[in-house]
Amino acid sequence: MARDPKYDVLFEPIELGPKTLPNRFWQVPHCNGAGSERPGMQAEFRAVKAEGGWGAVFTEVCVMTPDGDVTPWVGARLWDEGDIRNLSLMCDRIHDHDALAGVEMAFPGGLAQNAETRAPGRVVSQIPSDINPMGNGRELGKDEIRQLRREHVEGAKRARAAGFDLLTVYCSLGTFPMYFLYPFYNKRTDEYGGSFENRMRFTRELLEELHEEIDDCAIGCRFAIDTLEEPYGYGDLGIRHDGEGVGFVEALDDLVDYWDLNIGTLNWGEDAGSSRFFPMNHQADYVRIAKSVSKKACINVGRFTDPDVMVDAINSGQCDVIGAARPSIADPWLPRKIEEGRPEDIRECIGCNVCVSRWEMGGPPIWCTQNATSGEEYRRGWHPEKFSKATNAENDVLIVGAGPAGMECATVLGKRGMRRVHIVDANEAMGGHLGWVTRLPGLGTWSRVTQYREGQIDKLSNVQFVPKTELALDDVLEYGAEIVIVATGSKWDPVGMSGPTHTPVEGVSADADFVFTPEKLFVEGKKPGERVIVYDTDGYYMGASVSEALAADGHKVTYVTHLDTVGSYMRFTLEEQRQYQRLVELGVELVTQSLVLAAEPGKAALLQVWSGAESQVEIDSIVMVTQRNSESELYDKLISEADLEEAGIGAVYAIGDAWSPGLIAQSVFSGHRLAREIDSPDPSVPLPFIRERRVIGNGEDTYTLDSSSIAVPSA
Amino acid sequence: MARDPKYDVLFEPIELGPKTLPNRFWQVPHCNGAGSERPGMQAEFRAVKAEGGWGAVFTEVCVMTPDGDVTPWVGARLWDEGDIRNLSLMCDRIHDHDALAGVEMAFPGGLAQNAETRAPGRVVSQIPSDINPMGNGRELGKDEIRQLRREHVEGAKRARAAGFDLLTVYCSLGTFPMYFLYPFYNKRTDEYGGSFENRMRFTRELLEELHEEIDDCAIGCRFAIDTLEEPYGYGDLGIRHDGEGVGFVEALDDLVDYWDLNIGTLNWGEDAGSSRFFPMNHQADYVRIAKSVSKKACINVGRFTDPDVMVDAINSGQCDVIGAARPSIADPWLPRKIEEGRPEDIRECIGCNVCVSRWEMGGPPIWCTQNATSGEEYRRGWHPEKFSKATNAENDVLIVGAGPAGMECATVLGKRGMRRVHIVDANEAMGGHLGWVTRLPGLGTWSRVTQYREGQIDKLSNVQFVPKTELALDDVLEYGAEIVIVATGSKWDPVGMSGPTHTPVEGVSADADFVFTPEKLFVEGKKPGERVIVYDTDGYYMGASVSEALAADGHKVTYVTHLDTVGSYMRFTLEEQRQYQRLVELGVELVTQSLVLAAEPGKAALLQVWSGAESQVEIDSIVMVTQRNSESELYDKLISEADLEEAGIGAVYAIGDAWSPGLIAQSVFSGHRLAREIDSPDPSVPLPFIRERRVIGNGEDTYTLDSSSIAVPSA
Repeated sequence: MARDPKYDVLFEPIELGPKTLPNRFWQVPHCNGAGSERPGMQAEFRAVKAEGGWGAVFTEVCVMTPDGDVTPWVGARLWDEGDIRNLSLMCDRIHDHDALAGVEMAFPGGLAQNAETRAPGRVVSQIPSDINPMGNGRELGKDEIRQLRREHVEGAKRARAAGFDLLTVYCSLGTFPMYFLYPFYNKRTDEYGGSFENRMRFTRELLEELHEEIDDCAIGCRFAIDTLEEPYGYGDLGIRHDGEGVGFVEALDDLVDYWDLNIGTLNWGEDAGSSRFFPMNHQADYVRIAKSVSKKACINVGRFTDPDVMVDAINSGQCDVIGAARPSIADPWLPRKIEEGRPEDIRECIGCNVCVSRWEMGGPPIWCTQNATSGEEYRRGWHPEKFSKATNAENDVLIVGAGPAGMECATVLGKRGMRRVHIVDANEAMGGHLGWVTRLPGLGTWSRVTQYREGQIDKLSNVQFVPKTELALDDVLEYGAEIVIVATGSKWDPVGMSGPTHTPVEGVSADADFVFTPEKLFVEGKKPGERVIVYDTDGYYMGASVSEALAADGHKVTYVTHLDTVGSYMRFTLEEQRQYQRLVELGVELVTQSLVLAAEPGKAALLQVWSGAESQVEIDSIVMVTQRNSESELYDKLISEADLEEAGIGAVYAIGDAWSPGLIAQSVFSGHRLAREIDSPDPSVPLPFIRERRVIGNGEDTYTLDSSSIAVPSA
Repeated sequence: MARDPKYDVLFEPIELGPKTLPNRFWQVPHCNGAGSERPGMQAEFRAVKAEGGWGAVFTEVCVMTPDGDVTPWVGARLWDEGDIRNLSLMCDRIHDHDALAGVEMAFPGGLAQNAETRAPGRVVSQIPSDINPMGNGRELGKDEIRQLRREHVEGAKRARAAGFDLLTVYCSLGTFPMYFLYPFYNKRTDEYGGSFENRMRFTRELLEELHEEIDDCAIGCRFAIDTLEEPYGYGDLGIRHDGEGVGFVEALDDLVDYWDLNIGTLNWGEDAGSSRFFPMNHQADYVRIAKSVSKKACINVGRFTDPDVMVDAINSGQCDVIGAARPSIADPWLPRKIEEGRPEDIRECIGCNVCVSRWEMGGPPIWCTQNATSGEEYRRGWHPEKFSKATNAENDVLIVGAGPAGMECATVLGKRGMRRVHIVDANEAMGGHLGWVTRLPGLGTWSRVTQYREGQIDKLSNVQFVPKTELALDDVLEYGAEIVIVATGSKWDPVGMSGPTHTPVEGVSADADFVFTPEKLFVEGKKPGERVIVYDTDGYYMGASVSEALAADGHKVTYVTHLDTVGSYMRFTLEEQRQYQRLVELGVELVTQSLVLAAEPGKAALLQVWSGAESQVEIDSIVMVTQRNSESELYDKLISEADLEEAGIGAVYAIGDAWSPGLIAQSVFSGHRLAREIDSPDPSVPLPFIRERRVIGNGEDTYTLDSSSIAVPSA
């Protein structure tokens, strides 16, 4: 099928200096945990996007010198010949699909701790990092500034040598051009500080020097055009889009081939805004001003997943190119699906920021809730849109439970050509716990997890959803499927078993009227009393969301957690600040670093975990958001009590929360993994994957010390 | 020189099943950030210890299956043939020095998030991890327990194949034997739960199976014999040394060749006790009971750095073997120095736990305050006790400032045979800021940083300390040294410039009577008023230590930080809990997640950073522990104003806090690095080091996807 002509503008090429962008889809720089040290992962992760129609595909933040080592965060690096080689594979694979390869060149300066390299750091003014208290450096002298520019240029040449077409000077979120530009960082009194022109000087000089030495790559800036008001940004110490922001674009427009625009600060939840707080294209009112002064291509971002919104952004003069990070992770083939006239197949980003959280944690590779193949393209050989026919496709599969794990498993098994897949659920609709979770405040967009899979299953003639059917052990044995997959999910523990104490909360029983779980509230619809404790040892969204819902409903809510802050994993998803504020606005009392020791109708006893101080809170009800328990009874019975052979069942598996309660992303992955490996020797155990590391002892690598550097003791 | 005969017992061999430990020095398992993926670093880091006389040298925690992936923490791994190869290099290099190679075999189960592997986890009872809220797993069925034991045995065989002599079953801090043993984790009602015998069953069966299949390695347990009272441990849900602890040792003694004993829980600051709270050999009263029931070698730990204490521990019947992690990091040659009759050369661990902090942060390789070569043995080719003669040794060197950076630099330059090194300081004694910092509560042991270097400098005839001499620019120019190194340190900012705000605190000026810095208190000896705010945006020890000192001195102290907790980096050094409690005991009011917006005599205005709530505190004084500023004026003048050529000065460098304020470990490293590379082409820039990563494109590595795993779309 051909694309709808209304989307034609998205597929028009555009000139970027010496390069031509083949269409208007631009995968802006974003991390994936591959860096330069997992070249296979990096190359295939990006290649799948180029194949999927993204006209430009970028690295994550790419650190150009060892004194910008951001360990434990994992960025790309272009320090030496080895990095050039490793990233050249990414460029080659992007070029295989006729897209442009881009690099986000970063000099993080004082943001970096140099924890791995132990290199001495450099800064514009000697103040510790706002994000990383251990990050600081030497305040640059003038000769040192000249040297720093030189290092930028040498780094750009390494990027060109690797094969990059698009060289982005990173002018936002912790890099030198920004350190000079924003008064927040720049307290200098020489010609690099003070006036706007002085604060722009470094960037201007840098761009001039880059153009002097490089004329066969496009050179642009990724620029945060507005650093926002406090408490979300730098306030008077930053820049605003309609002041120095647009002034910067105007002043330097002749020196760039493109502007990749965004907003915000190192507190980057305002840029990578989660769906809980921000709609699609939420940066429009800040970034559109650039087009009023620029003659160059302007790229915007804003979690674009809807082609109609994209077209409007371009036709309205807001921007020239649609940038995307998260939508390109959730669906690497998003442009191609528009091109092929099947936009309904787009696997839309849900804006949960689990991808972001893996960077923020430092270390782990990317996870995506919607796209289980993200990061697995090379090491497990998974392609988001291509599936091999299962070698045991002649089997019928029964999946019990239509939550995220079951839906994903059914979808992938369907695409792998299993003869028949039945996915059976007690509820009327698919989605499992998402059915009620997506009705919690702000979480509506998460329903895309269900919607996408419903749409796919609907198209797969070999997959059938069976609603309103609860299967007991005997029902499963009699169902007639050769393969049974249990995806029955989990439930919140009613008595407060929890990670920190490994005991129930004293005085709490499952059937007590004053005790609630999220399901009791939102599935059974039971009403708590006026004064409620929400006890959160889970540490992600549920405790905060329950508190928000109850407070909005007029309850007097006390939120208690043993962790340092409200839903501490939300710090990693960049949702902490606004969620915290929302709870404060609703009058929720927030008690952190505290356990609920005991509860009864009327009161609860709290313990401050560090000081040991005890206190009491008057309550009518308590909501336990402490831990989830797998609903694995059916699976346990199948493997221990049932005569599977007699039932004609060859294999039984458990996936998702029924195996181990976790993030939705983990459940989706679990279902996907089983479906990908359903024809492996033992699908209950994941196949080994390629680990990208150097292995010694194969006759090629020699690990010997250079003995010349070790002499006898001197005295 | 020969060793003192009183230390002979430390050098007696001892049998461990089929192996012979050559002496009584045992480097217990400890992390270093190398894992199995930096085989060169791992091998040379451990080899230097074997060379230095440690009879047994272990890996860090070594994870044996992909479902125990503890990313972002960096442990060793023995999952496959590649890991066997990589760790075999460590074994070979340890064997080169006639020591035994040991491995700490770990199955972390539900502690692990499997963030890299995405493998489904397994647990004894389904409760989230007490340390890692995202860690959980499938509650094991009986067949699954059998399978798990089998995996332990297969893992042990891989360890043997790598060349390990000592196979330690890790029975503490987050592993399956412990999960079964401690009621905190084990809520089972089958034959693996309930009674002591049932809770020991897994370990007993495992040890039996290991012995059935492996008879040529020593097999032992690392066992936490006491899990301590609350709030430091599991209380009634754990074990005590004189109950089930010693019972475990007695019951399983026939099945092990050695017991490596310690105490505590995953809250492991009670085991790796910092010097602030624990003296040397602090575990003696818990662990000595094992000898009363065991016929096997018992290893104890307790930050042993004093050979007399070691001899006492053995002769008193407390233990048979001296275990050490941190002392072996600070001085890999500790045993050899005793052997060679020069115990005064031991570089004693200061118990600051900066080494631990790098593991706790997740990702970074090890740092050691005392030993700058730690982790650099392979990649930079540094040996802690061997130094090459500098090729420019004919130069005289002037070091201005005798703090940690200057002292270390002078020591290493002396050992590298520079003609003359003068280290000049305005103070009477060496040590720089450590002169007063070590008088803060609990920090006395940190003075070993100074003592060790004083001792070394005293022995070096080419190095001279020049006290009580302040050098101005002209003095330096006239000094007559060809190389000048500025190590003038840093001072605390008096007006409250800070990472979070990048502005001074309103109302605060450097000369105001009510405003203090740590130096004004502890160097100038000025006295603050009764009610004091200690404002800590630094986030390590200084704010807490100042608060403790002032509170102990009778002041009413309010501690304010924008971070989540008291001195948040102390969470990484395992000092948070006791420091927090000590402050509470002293009546310090702790205000976290808050900024001081403004201060004046009488009051200060605070802002809660997440909620935006403002409040006031009545104060007489405020102490600024916000940021440090480099004292770099001398260096800046030398490089920008002085005629160096006329003065006969060929090179000027800045090191330590004078370049960038940081941890003491960073200053020591900075001084060491410059001295190691003083004869490199440009000593101001660190030489490149070996990065252990796979590099593609050299004709050997091919990164191609197995195309068989990708088929055409199914529909």
